[in-house]
Amino acid sequence: MAVKKLGAQTVKFQNPPSIIATATVVGPVEGKGPLRNYFDLILGDFKFQEKSWEKAEKKMLKEAVEMAVKKSGVPSDKIEYFIAGDLLNQIISASFAARELGYPFLGIYGACSTVAEGLGIGAMLVDGGYADNIVVGTSSHFCSAERQYRFPLELGNQRPPTAQRTVTGAGAAVISTKNQNPRITYVTTGKVIDMGAVDPNDMGSAMAPAAVDTIVMHLEDSKRTPEDYDLIVTGDLASVGKDIAQKLMLQKGIDVSNKYTDCGLLIYSPEQDVHAGGSGCACAAVVTFGYIFNEMQKGRYNKILLVATGALMNSTIVQQGETIPCIAHAVALENL
Amino acid sequence: MAVKKLGAQTVKFQNPPSIIATATVVGPVEGKGPLRNYFDLILGDFKFQEKSWEKAEKKMLKEAVEMAVKKSGVPSDKIEYFIAGDLLNQIISASFAARELGYPFLGIYGACSTVAEGLGIGAMLVDGGYADNIVVGTSSHFCSAERQYRFPLELGNQRPPTAQRTVTGAGAAVISTKNQNPRITYVTTGKVIDMGAVDPNDMGSAMAPAAVDTIVMHLEDSKRTPEDYDLIVTGDLASVGKDIAQKLMLQKGIDVSNKYTDCGLLIYSPEQDVHAGGSGCACAAVVTFGYIFNEMQKGRYNKILLVATGALMNSTIVQQGETIPCIAHAVALENL
Repeated sequence: MAVKKLGAQTVKFQNPPSIIATATVVGPVEGKGPLRNYFDLILGDFKFQEKSWEKAEKKMLKEAVEMAVKKSGVPSDKIEYFIAGDLLNQIISASFAARELGYPFLGIYGACSTVAEGLGIGAMLVDGGYADNIVVGTSSHFCSAERQYRFPLELGNQRPPTAQRTVTGAGAAVISTKNQNPRITYVTTGKVIDMGAVDPNDMGSAMAPAAVDTIVMHLEDSKRTPEDYDLIVTGDLASVGKDIAQKLMLQKGIDVSNKYTDCGLLIYSPEQDVHAGGSGCACAAVVTFGYIFNEMQKGRYNKILLVATGALMNSTIVQQGETIPCIAHAVALENL
Repeated sequence: MAVKKLGAQTVKFQNPPSIIATATVVGPVEGKGPLRNYFDLILGDFKFQEKSWEKAEKKMLKEAVEMAVKKSGVPSDKIEYFIAGDLLNQIISASFAARELGYPFLGIYGACSTVAEGLGIGAMLVDGGYADNIVVGTSSHFCSAERQYRFPLELGNQRPPTAQRTVTGAGAAVISTKNQNPRITYVTTGKVIDMGAVDPNDMGSAMAPAAVDTIVMHLEDSKRTPEDYDLIVTGDLASVGKDIAQKLMLQKGIDVSNKYTDCGLLIYSPEQDVHAGGSGCACAAVVTFGYIFNEMQKGRYNKILLVATGALMNSTIVQQGETIPCIAHAVALENL
């Protein structure tokens, strides 16, 4: 068996890579939410001085990456890979940001699980001896996502209570061989799970089984229990999906009730009228790189299991009658 | 500097991973081309007993992966990662194939460079001690790509002579720690290069500078020369892009004229009336995993530099007036 592999789906790092810096940009709605003090840049509107939402999204990602690299103190020419993806067709936010940033680029796609997929691949490349410094990033934008996945905003469609709001924002992190906390200690790569959900306005229900599958595999492979973590954070199941995930785990004898939360619930307050909560690649990214990273640096949390979830459909295939395949990747973040 | 890193963009493996098996599926047009005897399965039509082109594409990818795994002799439950991507929005071919295959899944996006991105990440995960056996795959389909990127086929639009035909097909390879040839010895990850091209019917011209940039970086980083290779194969520049790439290299003092070819030229014969040649994720994949892999096994070629190229735009951003960012990743394949 490969020396760094544990069980079926988990990697344990021999020299756990560090997250040495993070940065976040969020839109105006997220900037009024309960985590507002954790974000580096809050936009006043959805355009960010650009002519389209797509261009604004790309600019947010580029800004987040540049801020994270600047904070890390790593000279820009020492960043060896930019690993990124987003929700837009052909991950244009990531590709166009990569064009301006100039780093060697690995494009990834995991829908809203992208942040965990990126941290996982990034940590493997750093621990594997392929790079000393890598920047990982992802983004999403409420307006560009709505028109691509659902309806143009101009239609003014009403959204059902199970719908989640795509977070407008971008997050980036620099992963490094430098000897500092927090570290990436374990990565559990998810399988695609599809329980037959078909409603693109209820992604939480669709994704919950994938989150549970990955959490169960992580605990089994690593021989850990929920007690080994200060907090297990899924993202982005929001209120509907989080309840389902918690019940499914309890059915498997895993009680996480006192230490389980979800990025889609943390990012907005109930008063903000966003229905079930947040979603989008930026949801788990800005909560992790804003709130969690900062609280880990302060020592409030020392062991976090991030389980980012993604729904892997597109509108064409849903119109062809397909159900929605989902995935979740887990990353353990620890102060050692 | 990271122990396996050479120069700015290249990795040299300490224990070069093997490609122990490959498999290819192609459509009816590719099945009449000059490489027809190298493919495992040639389809009689574009639907593959499915109800849509998208579902047919997914089925091709799944079949290619299953055949490659079967040929490799690795039990299915010992495949530790499925790394795949494709051209369709939200890489649905890869995600839906992953749902049916059941392997832990890492979705990637590099447009037509996907095969090299997948081989690169896969080899890093195997050499890095994270897995013993990984399957990498990619696919494309003429009909699904045309309607997504250009015009519905039903319109019967005329295509200009610079246009390339998206290859209908899928290719997969099993990367392993097993001690056999051919090996993946070097990987050079590309930067995004954009020379201002805007014509989605002339991708070869747009991508040529990215191919040249990556070849130059590979030679510089590895301190190799074209003489170190039996063949340098770009994919998929086709006739227009290949000529530009060759001229650009000559301007930089690199003469590859006697050992340079392109997957987009190899896959069709001039009599097939496909204009400039082939393109699509499957183009470089089926040429590499069909023709090149087989000729390496026979010993006709022993050192190949594969430089897969991708154009990273989507139709929305082209309509917003953006130029086309391109990328190329290089993978050295060697019989040691």
